[in-house]
Amino acid sequence: MNGNRFGRLFQVTTYGESHGAGMGVTVSGCPAGVKLDEETVQRELDRRKPGQSMITTSRGEPDEVTIQSGLLDGYTTGTPLGMTIENKDAQSGKYEPFVTAPRPSHGDYTYSAKFGTRNWGGGGRSSARETVNWVAAGAVAKAVLDQSEYDIEVKAHVNQIGDIEAPEVSFEELLEHSEENEVRCAHPETAEAMREAIDDYQERGDSIGGSIYFEARGVPRGLGAPRFDGVPSRLGQALFSIPATTSVEFGLGRDARSVAGKERNEDWEFADGDEDHVVADEGDPIPEGNDHGGLQGGITTGEPIYGEASWHAPTSVPKTQETVDWETGEEKEVTVTGRHDPSLPPRAVPVVEAMLYCTILDFMLLGGRINPDRLDGRPGAYDTDYHPSSPRNDE
Amino acid sequence: MNGNRFGRLFQVTTYGESHGAGMGVTVSGCPAGVKLDEETVQRELDRRKPGQSMITTSRGEPDEVTIQSGLLDGYTTGTPLGMTIENKDAQSGKYEPFVTAPRPSHGDYTYSAKFGTRNWGGGGRSSARETVNWVAAGAVAKAVLDQSEYDIEVKAHVNQIGDIEAPEVSFEELLEHSEENEVRCAHPETAEAMREAIDDYQERGDSIGGSIYFEARGVPRGLGAPRFDGVPSRLGQALFSIPATTSVEFGLGRDARSVAGKERNEDWEFADGDEDHVVADEGDPIPEGNDHGGLQGGITTGEPIYGEASWHAPTSVPKTQETVDWETGEEKEVTVTGRHDPSLPPRAVPVVEAMLYCTILDFMLLGGRINPDRLDGRPGAYDTDYHPSSPRNDE
Amino acid sequence: MNGNRFGRLFQVTTYGESHGAGMGVTVSGCPAGVKLDEETVQRELDRRKPGQSMITTSRGEPDEVTIQSGLLDGYTTGTPLGMTIENKDAQSGKYEPFVTAPRPSHGDYTYSAKFGTRNWGGGGRSSARETVNWVAAGAVAKAVLDQSEYDIEVKAHVNQIGDIEAPEVSFEELLEHSEENEVRCAHPETAEAMREAIDDYQERGDSIGGSIYFEARGVPRGLGAPRFDGVPSRLGQALFSIPATTSVEFGLGRDARSVAGKERNEDWEFADGDEDHVVADEGDPIPEGNDHGGLQGGITTGEPIYGEASWHAPTSVPKTQETVDWETGEEKEVTVTGRHDPSLPPRAVPVVEAMLYCTILDFMLLGGRINPDRLDGRPGAYDTDYHPSSPRNDE
Amino acid sequence: MNGNRFGRLFQVTTYGESHGAGMGVTVSGCPAGVKLDEETVQRELDRRKPGQSMITTSRGEPDEVTIQSGLLDGYTTGTPLGMTIENKDAQSGKYEPFVTAPRPSHGDYTYSAKFGTRNWGGGGRSSARETVNWVAAGAVAKAVLDQSEYDIEVKAHVNQIGDIEAPEVSFEELLEHSEENEVRCAHPETAEAMREAIDDYQERGDSIGGSIYFEARGVPRGLGAPRFDGVPSRLGQALFSIPATTSVEFGLGRDARSVAGKERNEDWEFADGDEDHVVADEGDPIPEGNDHGGLQGGITTGEPIYGEASWHAPTSVPKTQETVDWETGEEKEVTVTGRHDPSLPPRAVPVVEAMLYCTILDFMLLGGRINPDRLDGRPGAYDTDYHPSSPRNDE
Repeated sequence: MNGNRFGRLFQVTTYGESHGAGMGVTVSGCPAGVKLDEETVQRELDRRKPGQSMITTSRGEPDEVTIQSGLLDGYTTGTPLGMTIENKDAQSGKYEPFVTAPRPSHGDYTYSAKFGTRNWGGGGRSSARETVNWVAAGAVAKAVLDQSEYDIEVKAHVNQIGDIEAPEVSFEELLEHSEENEVRCAHPETAEAMREAIDDYQERGDSIGGSIYFEARGVPRGLGAPRFDGVPSRLGQALFSIPATTSVEFGLGRDARSVAGKERNEDWEFADGDEDHVVADEGDPIPEGNDHGGLQGGITTGEPIYGEASWHAPTSVPKTQETVDWETGEEKEVTVTGRHDPSLPPRAVPVVEAMLYCTILDFMLLGGRINPDRLDGRPGAYDTDYHPSSPRNDE
Repeated sequence: MNGNRFGRLFQVTTYGESHGAGMGVTVSGCPAGVKLDEETVQRELDRRKPGQSMITTSRGEPDEVTIQSGLLDGYTTGTPLGMTIENKDAQSGKYEPFVTAPRPSHGDYTYSAKFGTRNWGGGGRSSARETVNWVAAGAVAKAVLDQSEYDIEVKAHVNQIGDIEAPEVSFEELLEHSEENEVRCAHPETAEAMREAIDDYQERGDSIGGSIYFEARGVPRGLGAPRFDGVPSRLGQALFSIPATTSVEFGLGRDARSVAGKERNEDWEFADGDEDHVVADEGDPIPEGNDHGGLQGGITTGEPIYGEASWHAPTSVPKTQETVDWETGEEKEVTVTGRHDPSLPPRAVPVVEAMLYCTILDFMLLGGRINPDRLDGRPGAYDTDYHPSSPRNDE
Repeated sequence: MNGNRFGRLFQVTTYGESHGAGMGVTVSGCPAGVKLDEETVQRELDRRKPGQSMITTSRGEPDEVTIQSGLLDGYTTGTPLGMTIENKDAQSGKYEPFVTAPRPSHGDYTYSAKFGTRNWGGGGRSSARETVNWVAAGAVAKAVLDQSEYDIEVKAHVNQIGDIEAPEVSFEELLEHSEENEVRCAHPETAEAMREAIDDYQERGDSIGGSIYFEARGVPRGLGAPRFDGVPSRLGQALFSIPATTSVEFGLGRDARSVAGKERNEDWEFADGDEDHVVADEGDPIPEGNDHGGLQGGITTGEPIYGEASWHAPTSVPKTQETVDWETGEEKEVTVTGRHDPSLPPRAVPVVEAMLYCTILDFMLLGGRINPDRLDGRPGAYDTDYHPSSPRNDE
Repeated sequence: MNGNRFGRLFQVTTYGESHGAGMGVTVSGCPAGVKLDEETVQRELDRRKPGQSMITTSRGEPDEVTIQSGLLDGYTTGTPLGMTIENKDAQSGKYEPFVTAPRPSHGDYTYSAKFGTRNWGGGGRSSARETVNWVAAGAVAKAVLDQSEYDIEVKAHVNQIGDIEAPEVSFEELLEHSEENEVRCAHPETAEAMREAIDDYQERGDSIGGSIYFEARGVPRGLGAPRFDGVPSRLGQALFSIPATTSVEFGLGRDARSVAGKERNEDWEFADGDEDHVVADEGDPIPEGNDHGGLQGGITTGEPIYGEASWHAPTSVPKTQETVDWETGEEKEVTVTGRHDPSLPPRAVPVVEAMLYCTILDFMLLGGRINPDRLDGRPGAYDTDYHPSSPRNDE
């Protein structure tokens, strides 16, 4: 409603602006008994952190997370996890000239139009800095899924920067290579070319768009609540919430428009039981292909869910641009001098994964698939025989 | 949550299956004082109705709506509008063979996986028939916006079927031509070619994908609540809820990935005040272009919101296909014999428009932009001086 | 938000006005596999129906329900249940004089103040007639709970009318006697006295307040999500939604204010396992008493949940009263001539029970306690081995 | 849903346990342009703070709030306010014996039953300490209302402790006297007697229940969305969320059960315009009395909203009590040695007021009554002519 909450049962609420005192996220709805510590969350934050390489902003944020609540002796208690992250390297002065003169293609004007004011420092709440909260929440969601009875893996990589497209890669390649290079492209040669392209744009004082391919494996059959809460509807909402996203596709995506029904339709066959790409036991019906992207009628089939999303070029480019000052009524030149990424997808990879983890866990909780009694790390200490989390306990 | 509700302040709740007794939609949150009658809703339902032409299913549904509540003397009362539509031409027998043998690429298997049962008749609730409810709700949303102080227009047309792409059309062409032909393509020659292509696929017992271009004009600046309730997030959710949608794009969309920042960035300039494409008075800042699709930072700029969405080919094709029966454990051949559309976009056009109208009105209500005292048709009869709908009344 | 939706996972959405074409309720979130038919719902509607006796309005409404969707072969499918009830005996003419002159203590003025208009016929949406929808939804909730693995029983009766108070009754008496008389008081002698009192008020052209005692047994331990979604919070919201409710109490209720801590505190002891008043196995901790009303920290203890709620006297009395006409600016006399109940609690009993059933089921669903695989009536026909409703299925 | 969120448009999300690192609250939906600083919030926190007097727990918490986000130059920006409060004087060791042996009538057992674990330190999240977050949120809500065009005042006082009841007091007395004494009773003599009674119970190692009377003046007519979101429904939910609340009443409350319709009904008359108890201009219809508590049909009449709520005696009493250990299966004696209040209402007064402020503001926002352009403190600095917060701006 107000834009600061995400999720139905796994509820993420965030606050924080780019140059404010700190960022914070409250995760409500995390099951009790999940093994969790700050390191687990920190590991994911480090992947999103600025200053990782030459192609990310040089802003020096350690992005250290503190978990304020919801944990006892290393396990979640079922009560909300409050996580805070201080802002340490905000340099707002750099932006001051733009208070009443919007930077081209930023959210400056629209935030002022909406609120009649805005926190102009570093883009305020419109800054991608806010996604640090999402990645923290995603780390929690990942921990829950990792300790569940399911074997769910989410992975994304950069598959296009400018005109440079990566060839299709296998899920194994995704897992192996996507974190090997600064571009986060799982195809090493393409990564090299992307890196050069980004360097070129950066040197020319320009920026460039790109895209991410994502895949989620092991998501069980039967998740999703059509018609308005189908998996694509909620993943679509999640991915379009990431700043600068311009397209989202599932399965054949945009290409589906030129594919005939006979070609796309996938017959049903019986599973051998040793397929590793699909959640199915021997003798279960499985579709013979996966052009449907793991989703039929908005509900999961057990096949991998996959798709792509695009990001436009960062709007912060060190170039003199024209704007107008709504207070003085004068035309004005602005030069953006902050520290910025020349292309968004490399740092958006952990954000995409976080949004997928949060959304998938939310569907798992709604579908009754997370059994707190069966979490890997389930502690014995404060456990009681009386915990009635599932009907089984009454047997 | 459960998939049957859409919207935050303009709340749409639906029920109904393809071959059940009837369809129904409850619209809660419609302001009081809107002039409305069944004809206004019926007009939109007739656009979505089956049996309009050779390229739509021959199912004979009059789709007659009855408004059960929420109206008095031709004006809404602010209480919920209950609308019902009977199903008159359901022929379930045709589908019986598939009860435990899923049709390829339909929602049969996934609905059974989710619920452990399903209403197999005509696809049950997974059927696109359910969108009749959405179009009824959209007609109400359109009526509210039409009577508001804003001049908001939403229009969509089919811009690709198979490999046949329409050239770009102006908004005026959209308004003028999109309803002139059965394909609902606003470019007459392309419409002709599309129609032939669809006929070909249909004759060959096949079906084909396609896409829709949509545009919303006159939406005021400052709507949208980043980060999770930005306009693209909520429109994304809305459009991915339409059955068979495989991609959603805004502005440059997928193409943004190969566009540089310097090229995409749009300087700010002062409005002349006579631009007809943007919501701005003379002297207001406006961007020099609209590659951003009317959205910056998830909030509206006053420029037209536009984008595209794709639909895969209908999965119902009159072809013998392979499936398996999960009860008998046997392989089986199935031939889909129901009445189906050979391509979805032509009938999806009113559905897309309805989802846009509902979503935009929802944002307008959240932004406090709908003033019940200023609705065009505002009735005097039961009006009171005491109506405190806005602070102005206390002056 | 808009007032027409109730429940989180078990979602009830209603429409309808007293003198409109019909009433309707959509129940979304009812599990699949519940045995249900119109008779089951009708039985509850008949308990709430007008014209049951001399002490209820003589309006002749058969209140016949039709289930439009969500059922197949006598079992729910997991998709929304649309239920409609026609209005057959609306006589709006009787109310016409009050269009711009509010009846004393009704919702006439406030509805007009809120909406700037109102459906004046029979009180429009402010009428208690609307609760017919709630009772229909409650009948569904009851059916789900009845077929679950739990043995949950909800029962209410009228425990005070005017100054006539019933003595405390056992749950067995509640079950046995509350439906035996028209007042719905489970203490037969008191029922007699109440009946006489109501007759007296009615004869004098007056009306009278009263109260209801309610109790829910068998609700398992551990339900409720403090702090804002505790069981008392949500039951409080539910009960205050019933028209004319003026107080809600749980456990010791209002009397708790003069009870000392040492007196109220209840030690813990081990259950024998043969207590029939509490959900506990042998050796489980149980509290030695139930002054806490089955709720500690907002969460259920397994002891019966009980409390009281009060209703003010019906505002429709056949007496000449003073009002003002906001259109003419004149003072005016009004005489309410419609058909009305002289006291609300007798007909509110099924409404209270319905709200309790809906709310308890909602908590049961949120707590993961309803296992669709274990519903009593679970059908085999469309069942699949693949239904993954619970983790057990993956074993 | 999960219990950690409150409000529809004015959204409060909290985290924190009694003995955790810190408490936190995120307020989303606060309009932009509200003058706010930490002192304003701190002032309210100080009223709820422990250690204020001999009759409150001696736990030494400064309860210092830090606002992490959502403010710029002393004004809210419309983005979420993150507020954090450190826990400084947690002494968990004292509670350790009760890890698997629940304290009588606390939430120990029920939290363990719900989550299978709990943060046993100081009651964890079940502790009334959590209401510090609510009071912080309430301070924000109060600031918004204070700066609005309306003159809304909320005030509560303790009107009963044990058997000692305060006589009825006027609103002026409420404002003048309720903060004068440690009991927070606006009737000075009664306050004295209450204080003595509390001291007596405390000396005897006991505790005592009590109640609070609350009143909200100046709330405009027409707020509330029947049927499920009426003002009593949402206030009921709010007040039953406060720990240890056992009853909630509005208007005549429980007494309404013995009042006849003719006696309770209030004729309508025209306002003089100089009434100070009701929101009405000269010539507006007003009811001749206020037995209805400012609410008719769930919607506000402009008359004061008033009612009462009760609290049971604190369950922490320094007395040896019996319990059982669910791990060892043994009976056990427990003595609660923490620092506790001997009666809850004195410190609950600011909590009740906070919940009223939050709920009323939420209804004001839903009713479109908060005009950001007309907030008293509205800053000029970052304001734009283009702020389209209300239709008026487009004139």
